[in-house]
Amino acid sequence: MEVIMATKFRWGILGTGNIAKQFARGLASISDAELVAVGSRSRESADRFGDEFSVPHRHSTYEDLARDPGVDAIYVATPHPMHHENAILCLENDKPVLVEKPFTVNASEAKRVIDTARERGVFCMEAMWTRFLPVIAKLREIVESGEIGDVRMVQANFAFRAQFNPESRLFKPELGGGGLLDVGIYAISFARMIMKNAPVEVYSMADMGKTGVDEQAAIILRYGAERMAMLMCGTRVTT
Amino acid sequence: MEVIMATKFRWGILGTGNIAKQFARGLASISDAELVAVGSRSRESADRFGDEFSVPHRHSTYEDLARDPGVDAIYVATPHPMHHENAILCLENDKPVLVEKPFTVNASEAKRVIDTARERGVFCMEAMWTRFLPVIAKLREIVESGEIGDVRMVQANFAFRAQFNPESRLFKPELGGGGLLDVGIYAISFARMIMKNAPVEVYSMADMGKTGVDEQAAIILRYGAERMAMLMCGTRVTT
Repeated sequence: MEVIMATKFRWGILGTGNIAKQFARGLASISDAELVAVGSRSRESADRFGDEFSVPHRHSTYEDLARDPGVDAIYVATPHPMHHENAILCLENDKPVLVEKPFTVNASEAKRVIDTARERGVFCMEAMWTRFLPVIAKLREIVESGEIGDVRMVQANFAFRAQFNPESRLFKPELGGGGLLDVGIYAISFARMIMKNAPVEVYSMADMGKTGVDEQAAIILRYGAERMAMLMCGTRVTT
Repeated sequence: MEVIMATKFRWGILGTGNIAKQFARGLASISDAELVAVGSRSRESADRFGDEFSVPHRHSTYEDLARDPGVDAIYVATPHPMHHENAILCLENDKPVLVEKPFTVNASEAKRVIDTARERGVFCMEAMWTRFLPVIAKLREIVESGEIGDVRMVQANFAFRAQFNPESRLFKPELGGGGLLDVGIYAISFARMIMKNAPVEVYSMADMGKTGVDEQAAIILRYGAERMAMLMCGTRVTT
């Protein structure tokens, strides 16, 4: 019995929002993983989350979660602009970390997180779940096999129509609002999965709404000769 | 009997290539139109075409066709780079003209044709047939009605995969080769039909092949606030 317990991967969740709840629900269906700890910025929130998902250890600071010796890895589920700080906190405490997408809100933050992970030799990954969907795995296998020929053009759209609300996270610049960081990254990530390399040329045209975030954007990526991607994302447009 | 004949619109075709033949076949199914003349740069070619499509008047120069008093309008079916010269010839002889797409190969040529048509007060149109398809008419009606909401993003692709052949019109710069002039204009024209205005911002990224023509291109157009189009075209990519 002891042996079986010891093989379970012990997760901690940093954050208690909607995505944190979805992750907790998902973990419950995984036989070799368990949710053992949650960290919040307030005792009340940590307890409320802990009660709802039967989490034994509740921490009222992110630091306490990061230092919890009973946690094997941490899932970062805070708003976008906090990801880099939260991820670095975990890594500096030698905790492997799975960072909800978007990994960070810009390249310099991403570099700091990656540099920290490399320096400490600790695992770090963006929670780009679509990469592991069976349909995507099959698609990559088909592309790899060459049966559809060379892929010269990838097209991907990810957009939805939200009502305009300047108070919503989606429309607030300070919370990393806009379509690119919310859903555009799925399209970009998809192109990357198919093309494999990083693009050598990037162009984007965006409609910046009243609050200064991208409400819709068109993106062209070039992956060397004869390979391009056209991507579209938005928060105010139905695809 | 005389009266009925007089109501038929008398067409001349300038050029004897494949598209000219398709137009001739199409005309045969129109009850109030008839093909009365063909013009070529050679007597042999005019006669061959005339025999095949039972055209009474065959001209061995384009000038003779343009001056033919028995012709009501002329369809220009020559290779792309000749369109502007051919169209102007017709207009200067006061012949209404339908110019096969692309109208011309660049904006300055287009302007010269339009200026000539305006100066002479003679009808001139690009043969953008897709504009008149019942499905497009219905689509425009639906967009117009507002039942699908504001159109914020138009996407259109038109590409096909031709074998690379440097001797083919499609790959020769001097014949107006490349995907944009061959099929990309359908996507651009489609976006124009839906958005109605001309774009205020244009960006394109293209893969120029070995012969220096666009083998595939991605285009983003902006039509003012909250309205964009993403278009793709190519001659070496299957969509």
